[in-house]
Amino acid sequence: MPRYALLIEYDGAPFAGWQRQKEQPSVQGAIEAALARLEPRTHAIAAAGRTDAGVHALAQVAHCDMDKDWTPFRLSEALNHHLKPAPVAILGCARVAEDWHARFSARERRYLFRLMVRRAPAALEGAHVWRVAQPLDLEAMRAGAQHLLGRHDFTTFRSTMCQAESPVKTLDRLTIDKVAVNGGVEFHFHLAARSFLHNQVRSIVGTLERVGAGAWTPGRVAEALAAADRAACGPVCPPGGLYLSGVGYPEDPFAGAPEGPTAR
Amino acid sequence: MPRYALLIEYDGAPFAGWQRQKEQPSVQGAIEAALARLEPRTHAIAAAGRTDAGVHALAQVAHCDMDKDWTPFRLSEALNHHLKPAPVAILGCARVAEDWHARFSARERRYLFRLMVRRAPAALEGAHVWRVAQPLDLEAMRAGAQHLLGRHDFTTFRSTMCQAESPVKTLDRLTIDKVAVNGGVEFHFHLAARSFLHNQVRSIVGTLERVGAGAWTPGRVAEALAAADRAACGPVCPPGGLYLSGVGYPEDPFAGAPEGPTAR
Repeated sequence: MPRYALLIEYDGAPFAGWQRQKEQPSVQGAIEAALARLEPRTHAIAAAGRTDAGVHALAQVAHCDMDKDWTPFRLSEALNHHLKPAPVAILGCARVAEDWHARFSARERRYLFRLMVRRAPAALEGAHVWRVAQPLDLEAMRAGAQHLLGRHDFTTFRSTMCQAESPVKTLDRLTIDKVAVNGGVEFHFHLAARSFLHNQVRSIVGTLERVGAGAWTPGRVAEALAAADRAACGPVCPPGGLYLSGVGYPEDPFAGAPEGPTAR
Repeated sequence: MPRYALLIEYDGAPFAGWQRQKEQPSVQGAIEAALARLEPRTHAIAAAGRTDAGVHALAQVAHCDMDKDWTPFRLSEALNHHLKPAPVAILGCARVAEDWHARFSARERRYLFRLMVRRAPAALEGAHVWRVAQPLDLEAMRAGAQHLLGRHDFTTFRSTMCQAESPVKTLDRLTIDKVAVNGGVEFHFHLAARSFLHNQVRSIVGTLERVGAGAWTPGRVAEALAAADRAACGPVCPPGGLYLSGVGYPEDPFAGAPEGPTAR
């Protein structure tokens, strides 16, 4: 069966998450239903990152196996047609080897978190940012973030529901930018790792927000990490500001496909 | 009665437009209902621009008259509290003279139009951009736009429903930027004038899109304008990409208010 990699953008707000569930809308379920309109049978697709309810994707990657030999362009066009009106879009599609796997072949996951600071609620970006009212100190958040880079036992920053075998992960990147937005500012957290624990990004951002607000010293982040104790974590922040922004593979499956820009 | 200027952001998608209507949600109605929670009576507010259904605002300006002497900060906080969960936010509030008028004192209206170009639907920004699939030629659109600058009879670019006394308006600014977005590009049209005719911005952008697609030469824009005939206009584009982005006054009423950044 020919295998295809799919590059996917979605708005997580109306979904119970990526993963297929009985009686609740999921991104996986929406794409599998669209695939069943093209080849009527049960489809089971796999994704690089199983995002939680309310979490978005700029560049999720999944793969599907088809009976027919579709050109990648026709497959993405047909899927986008049948996905309407769900807020899920196939940005790119590429034929891959039959042993290529969206999840197991991935070498890096990248996330973006958008944290808006302004007094007024986010009217236009309500479900797309986490909005807080009090000013945040960028340099303090950056100092706190430094303690989390590298290989650590991230038990503190891991949901008690996390099913990963080990809490030891290597965080390769954690940078924070500040950008002006309508009536306020946004802090953009960029994180990259081979893989993440459940709720790891939201636990880290929620904790660094406390540092930015002055409630935590940057050094307390190092203490919390060293404690390897979930109770030492700051508050887990809400999902609406979180985006799966890219997945890295040994070779970019979408390179060269005009309708499939490189996952960023 | 003390008068207050309000700087307002809203998502136009769930509203039948700015203007209060019986039995349909409107932005004006939402703000007047919030005002009635603060001072229980009928409120009638006036805005600089009466945006259509589906049109957004980054910086609409309106004014309201209150019985009590509110500090601007408390008034905006109380309004934001009572506006929830409507996607309307008061970004700034300032005390103004009792003869200051949000509509009649305004000297300039500024609009932004976001036109996204990519094959895939806009999953994250669906109600916030107009998405087209075919590539557009930026320089051709800029050449077409040049013909519209200055003082003209804009009958061609005016809805037949328009109630303005005269079709003669002066377009002071019409610039187009191209920015990279997830999986594609966006063209940002920036327009400024003392005032606009009904559907003028959407008629202009819909026509310039035809120029960008190569269906119209830039020169045909000049011919359409000179015809002073509504039938000569290109297609009116949909409202979701349009934002009232700022209102200019002889003096910025929000200057100096820490919670009220200057309307941009």
